[in-house]
Amino acid sequence: MPNYPAAALQRQTAAVLTGWGMPAEAAERTAAIMVDADLRGIDSHGISMLPIYEKKWASGGLRLDTVAEVIHDDGRAAVVIDGHAGLGHLTAADAMNQACDRATSFGIGIAVVRNSHHFGAAGYYARLAADRGHLGLVTTSARTLSQAPTGGTQRRLGTNPLAFAAPSIPGHEAFVLDMSTTVVAMNKVKTYALAGTELPAPWVADGAGAPVYDSEQALHTVRHSDVGGLAPLGGPGTLSGGHKGYGLAMMVQILSAALSGAGLPSEGPPDNIGHMLLAIDAAALGGTQTARQYVADLIAAMHTTDPIDPDVPVLVAGEPEARSYAERSRHGITLPATLCDLLRGICERHDIEYHLATLDLPAAGAEQ
Amino acid sequence: MPNYPAAALQRQTAAVLTGWGMPAEAAERTAAIMVDADLRGIDSHGISMLPIYEKKWASGGLRLDTVAEVIHDDGRAAVVIDGHAGLGHLTAADAMNQACDRATSFGIGIAVVRNSHHFGAAGYYARLAADRGHLGLVTTSARTLSQAPTGGTQRRLGTNPLAFAAPSIPGHEAFVLDMSTTVVAMNKVKTYALAGTELPAPWVADGAGAPVYDSEQALHTVRHSDVGGLAPLGGPGTLSGGHKGYGLAMMVQILSAALSGAGLPSEGPPDNIGHMLLAIDAAALGGTQTARQYVADLIAAMHTTDPIDPDVPVLVAGEPEARSYAERSRHGITLPATLCDLLRGICERHDIEYHLATLDLPAAGAEQ
Repeated sequence: MPNYPAAALQRQTAAVLTGWGMPAEAAERTAAIMVDADLRGIDSHGISMLPIYEKKWASGGLRLDTVAEVIHDDGRAAVVIDGHAGLGHLTAADAMNQACDRATSFGIGIAVVRNSHHFGAAGYYARLAADRGHLGLVTTSARTLSQAPTGGTQRRLGTNPLAFAAPSIPGHEAFVLDMSTTVVAMNKVKTYALAGTELPAPWVADGAGAPVYDSEQALHTVRHSDVGGLAPLGGPGTLSGGHKGYGLAMMVQILSAALSGAGLPSEGPPDNIGHMLLAIDAAALGGTQTARQYVADLIAAMHTTDPIDPDVPVLVAGEPEARSYAERSRHGITLPATLCDLLRGICERHDIEYHLATLDLPAAGAEQ
Repeated sequence: MPNYPAAALQRQTAAVLTGWGMPAEAAERTAAIMVDADLRGIDSHGISMLPIYEKKWASGGLRLDTVAEVIHDDGRAAVVIDGHAGLGHLTAADAMNQACDRATSFGIGIAVVRNSHHFGAAGYYARLAADRGHLGLVTTSARTLSQAPTGGTQRRLGTNPLAFAAPSIPGHEAFVLDMSTTVVAMNKVKTYALAGTELPAPWVADGAGAPVYDSEQALHTVRHSDVGGLAPLGGPGTLSGGHKGYGLAMMVQILSAALSGAGLPSEGPPDNIGHMLLAIDAAALGGTQTARQYVADLIAAMHTTDPIDPDVPVLVAGEPEARSYAERSRHGITLPATLCDLLRGICERHDIEYHLATLDLPAAGAEQ
């Protein structure tokens, strides 16, 4: 499979966004956020989103020539932003920076966004706060209805992710949790269906609440069936704690959308997705140094746990992504040939230069 | 089993706390918070905690004659409170009121607590915020190590609960999520062991990560074994999402303890538990009325989901507790005879009047 340096993916992504009418600087910044997901191994939230964005843009639901606007700000610790139907990446990054500014001023700050779209990986924005020395909490609503409430048959909520980051001492990785409130993201079911292998756990339940292990049937359930869907974190039913995952999804929905005036899960088009970005300044509380040391000590305590499998050390959230980032920054990012075909198709349809073909050879050389 | 009106339990609880040296008004307020848990059906976090508090108090780790103190407050949106090794209930209630005051002033507010003890049900404090028209988020660390990190053998974290509440429109119940970040709380394993029945799901894993279904053996694993413990929400291992529950437990630990300067999970005595209480004023964002209506509409969308079992309607978090509250307020609270014996023992040891014996008859009459 072709392998590319991150810079190549970023150049291609920016070219596509510019080709669709996004101003150059915004396209550069958005592309950098998207490719950061690819670098961290979150393949589902990076350049592979372009075909989906194309459909939304082509249908008129997504605008690329707009700039988010602060619509409520009385100088206190809370601001409301209207995304004006643009992609969520820059909107959310700027919103988190606003939340951090308020946290610096008041000890804690919050920005909520309405009328936005997909913003990629939630962890990116939580990490932005950690990079500024703050704790960051991020939630977002989602457009696709994928999970049914516990005990219910129809899908009523999205995968509703949340992310949390906390900085550690200098030289140590921040703690970065980035998770959907469903057992897995939709994309994971798709991966198994493409491979034709059974799902390994009750990730999907049918309209009677029974697990669906056949991956083809599971994908159909989640996408097209009138009933059934992804199980909330904890699985289908209450015995394994599924009501907690469902409760977390509701919390994420309320935080992301109730405060900003974004849409209910069932509404749309337009998408009107909502985000919530919250920052806490440790300096205003127990002190930055104390908090950072605590995070480092807590992570160290996890690392000293004897592993069940001697070859698989105990990790904390964010470490697999940090490893992928180091690895892929050096060795490049491998794209499935099918994705390259999709990207080439986008370029052809919209008269955008396709860079990845020419970069294929040098990148393959970098694999030595 | 004997059945008592809430007022009787509250009177007995206050008498015990006063007998241990807590000032009368503090004892009344603490007893009211504890019995609120009994009214809501959260039997594990109400009057049944007194035998555990007795041990902590007798060993000198818990003080009942102290008052929490604000140790950092520069007039901004964040305050730090020292619980001075007292019970957490009043400390957390006052801290949430502080967070709400700041939210009213700044749009959002946070109070973190260190050097505290068990505070009962986290949902109580989130609901306090909702009662004031705010969104409330509450986390707490825990003293007992009960869960191992995903892929690890030894227990390194507690059940680390989180609670979230959001007010709905007048006349409607608030949304109140109150959950441990483990699949179940420790007490649930104990209940099954007492009944001698197998655990119905992989709630507990042994040192090799394999589920333990024998409830007696599971209880031993969680309490006494060097390895194994409660599974995080999502179950043992990553396939069913256990790493997400583990990640949430880490988030709760950091929010509760890193900012306040409370203890690491492995430290103690003293307990030095930390709490985090956060309030968001919807009026500073999209507007209180809009947010309340959104919560009502979202809950209504869940209620209109067709149930899998026609006799079990789809609920949202907080509704089972609200039903129990209504039911038990009318018909009283039933205590197991074994618990009554424990309470009687406490009263005898500390020369405290035992009220529940005499109230047994009238309460039984109230069952008509």
